[in-house]
Amino acid sequence: MPINKDAVGSKGSARTWAWDSRDALIYALGVGCGVADPVGSELEFTTENTMGVDQKVLPTFGVLAGFNAQGGKSAMSGIGTYDPRMLVHGEQGIRLHRPIPVAGEITLVDEITGIYDKGKGAVVATKAVATLTADGQPLFELTSSVFIVGEGGFGGDRGPSDKTNVAPERAPDHSVTYQTREDQALLYRLSGDRNPLHSDKKFSDVGRFPKPILHGLCTYGFTGRALLSALCGNEPARFKAMEGRFSSPVLPGEALTIRIWTGEGDAGTAIFQTVGGDGRVVLNNGGFSYS
Amino acid sequence: MPINKDAVGSKGSARTWAWDSRDALIYALGVGCGVADPVGSELEFTTENTMGVDQKVLPTFGVLAGFNAQGGKSAMSGIGTYDPRMLVHGEQGIRLHRPIPVAGEITLVDEITGIYDKGKGAVVATKAVATLTADGQPLFELTSSVFIVGEGGFGGDRGPSDKTNVAPERAPDHSVTYQTREDQALLYRLSGDRNPLHSDKKFSDVGRFPKPILHGLCTYGFTGRALLSALCGNEPARFKAMEGRFSSPVLPGEALTIRIWTGEGDAGTAIFQTVGGDGRVVLNNGGFSYS
Repeated sequence: MPINKDAVGSKGSARTWAWDSRDALIYALGVGCGVADPVGSELEFTTENTMGVDQKVLPTFGVLAGFNAQGGKSAMSGIGTYDPRMLVHGEQGIRLHRPIPVAGEITLVDEITGIYDKGKGAVVATKAVATLTADGQPLFELTSSVFIVGEGGFGGDRGPSDKTNVAPERAPDHSVTYQTREDQALLYRLSGDRNPLHSDKKFSDVGRFPKPILHGLCTYGFTGRALLSALCGNEPARFKAMEGRFSSPVLPGEALTIRIWTGEGDAGTAIFQTVGGDGRVVLNNGGFSYS
Repeated sequence: MPINKDAVGSKGSARTWAWDSRDALIYALGVGCGVADPVGSELEFTTENTMGVDQKVLPTFGVLAGFNAQGGKSAMSGIGTYDPRMLVHGEQGIRLHRPIPVAGEITLVDEITGIYDKGKGAVVATKAVATLTADGQPLFELTSSVFIVGEGGFGGDRGPSDKTNVAPERAPDHSVTYQTREDQALLYRLSGDRNPLHSDKKFSDVGRFPKPILHGLCTYGFTGRALLSALCGNEPARFKAMEGRFSSPVLPGEALTIRIWTGEGDAGTAIFQTVGGDGRVVLNNGGFSYS
């Protein structure tokens, strides 16, 4: 049952996602906030009642909307039926119009922006616009692409090349290392994505992984923390946009090192990549905008 | 404004507490489940969708009711006004009639069972009965005592002695060590007790602690896990009752060792104590019943 290659332009219907302060705290802990010394770092993301500290929301919290939004249909339904086990998250981007409030609700409408033929599979790219219900104004936009194994070879366009945001050969300007934990996925999954690939060894064995793997969007959240810390002074209002491509699974317990290069493009932009404990690149072609 | 010493027998009004599967998972992670190797241990407490594994609830989850129940007044309101900063958690017990369901609601009614004069302060003991709303039958009972500094010296009874469940001199029959984490309290607090003493250094400085301290009931939860593992094969239905006395604050990041003695009393009973990283006793006079 091949996918519908003519679905470019298909829109989903409006879906909503509501969150509260506790959800934002759970997400922050799920992507590793609060572990670092000294005591008191990142408390704006992990507590709501620290004296003199207003709770803030990590900018990458917004990417949860793509998974958690409910009540309508996603644009992906326009491509027809496929085996969800053959779907791999390829790229993820988020562009924020303003900081995400501590509690709120968004309406999300997405659209298929491209379907590409990579031979072994098809890439389906989507864009989603999130509007804050409280004021009806845009809050953030998400871009995402997925690779569906076995759905390629239909003679279509291969799509954009891989040559964006290529990491320079030189040493990075900033390098931030975070240790993920053996139980990282058990905590991260409470933000919404309960796929047992991340917790049940019987599932990860099917994919021939040595153990349940970390959520790609958890790696994404760790990476966003590093960018927020290194380039934005931990101020979410300065975090404008982030995009990257998942290039290798991460195992819980690995250290993640986020390598950041500035001065390669326009002012207020950076290139980044995230590498795992053995130095392999796990999140590549990273582009970041900030003020 | 002295407390009302004649409040023994005062009852609170019915309060309720509802929880869902996610709350039970958050609690389990908050008391350290999921960290241990091998992969797959304790997944009945940390996941709801592992193949062949039914989600279960840690027995000590029930102690959250005392803090989280809402909608009425607690028996403690019968003792009048006191400075809540002077209140220290002294003892905690739980007796289960049956395992706690993954999601549910209880009605809690508590009563003051004793007010004792310890000189430097008063001890107020309470007992609470939790009834499962779904069937109107008892689910568990909680006993608790608090020490209120500065409210003693009124010439009252000193109350029961400290000589119950004294740890034998001999080596324990079981010894279980769990490492708490620097951010343990940040996760545990999402189960309900947001007292900034556990997260905000400005608060813990007032109490002259080196940093924010771990919740006593978090230590209690780690201890319950050790008892459940060592004596009940991780089967909540075999966990009958647990009580103990908080004897020293714990700092996040400390290792906790739970020392367990069997064969000292009736069959199906044990004595335990929990010690911190430096060997001092942090939870003492522990009594446990199991089947």
